[in-house]
Amino acid sequence: MANTQSRKNEKVIPISVIKRLPIYYRCLVNLLNRDMERISSRELAEKIGVTASQIRQDLSHFGNFGQRGYGYNINDLSNAIANILGINHNFTMVLIGAGNLGTAIANYPNFKQRGFQIKAVFDNDISKIGMKLSDCTIQHINKLEDFLQVNNIDIGILTIPAEETQYFCNIFKEYGIKGIWNFAPVSLNTGNQVMVENVHISESLMTLAYRLKEEC
Amino acid sequence: MANTQSRKNEKVIPISVIKRLPIYYRCLVNLLNRDMERISSRELAEKIGVTASQIRQDLSHFGNFGQRGYGYNINDLSNAIANILGINHNFTMVLIGAGNLGTAIANYPNFKQRGFQIKAVFDNDISKIGMKLSDCTIQHINKLEDFLQVNNIDIGILTIPAEETQYFCNIFKEYGIKGIWNFAPVSLNTGNQVMVENVHISESLMTLAYRLKEEC
Repeated sequence: MANTQSRKNEKVIPISVIKRLPIYYRCLVNLLNRDMERISSRELAEKIGVTASQIRQDLSHFGNFGQRGYGYNINDLSNAIANILGINHNFTMVLIGAGNLGTAIANYPNFKQRGFQIKAVFDNDISKIGMKLSDCTIQHINKLEDFLQVNNIDIGILTIPAEETQYFCNIFKEYGIKGIWNFAPVSLNTGNQVMVENVHISESLMTLAYRLKEEC
Repeated sequence: MANTQSRKNEKVIPISVIKRLPIYYRCLVNLLNRDMERISSRELAEKIGVTASQIRQDLSHFGNFGQRGYGYNINDLSNAIANILGINHNFTMVLIGAGNLGTAIANYPNFKQRGFQIKAVFDNDISKIGMKLSDCTIQHINKLEDFLQVNNIDIGILTIPAEETQYFCNIFKEYGIKGIWNFAPVSLNTGNQVMVENVHISESLMTLAYRLKEEC
């Protein structure tokens, strides 16, 4: 599956398609939890708030799913999307910043069972060092480089103020971390070696404000 | 400005353009804070990680900004984008869920000075009732409807588990709240009267996972 996937993706899949896959996945897992076996693309589309043809078109990038008159087998399709997305691939992560946002992320339900493991948490607040967060003991930030030297980490999570992010971004790059999950309101300069995925919270609020203002 | 804006927007602006405006705005405010006066579209593009022609094209939806050979006046452009986005428009908000994520959101820097005011915070955890969060005293969730009856609220923020969101979504709708800022991993059913802006944290991580897996 993974190999077929890589070859297929030589014709680059639009990022908008990739961003919808986790939404399909979440919906399918909810249906599985309610013991449902199959669903039509129309029903799935209604639950998600897209069109059925959007779903069919998105999935067509990755192969043939579903059968006319039967719809999708929910278990098969959720497994296929999990494979496409790399869920269960086992990604190791470090978290920098054990404030409220970092704590919320570390305690987010389902990350671990989907193969995303936080291996260590670092902070510069002395009062937090030694406290537990998720399965980790919070370590002082000056231990980060020692940790990265002997541990193979895929993703660095940044839940720290914007002005500190570039420093850690450079450390991550130096130690071969391939992905940064950035919650700070800043555009990181990483070159091409490191992928950055941003969760820009205030920009999401401003987008909502625009849509509300236009509606008035 | 606002009126011109509304008329122009009868030819609908793509949401992808709207989502980039807050990024431009953040960058421009950072430059203003460093006492810069003007910037070329090329320099601005480099800082943000888009192309100069993308910036020019995005801004062209809203009017003429910048001059050939001079670039953009940073103060003017940031004010213009603030007006377009509805920043400083003064939006009132309530926050449902005073857990770690809710606390992080309530304490997010700059929301208040950009005109986004949290007027009340509600939770169902008795041990939190009466505690302070940002400028609010946390109230029991059973006070929400009384509060909405006598206060004019624009935006409801949901930082609660997925299974509880639809219930509050319905209450928001009933009391005429026009926007929901949803952090729960769920697609809300709101009809057409209420705008929903989602921050889907786990879906962002899955998107990063996909990109990392494809890179390997």
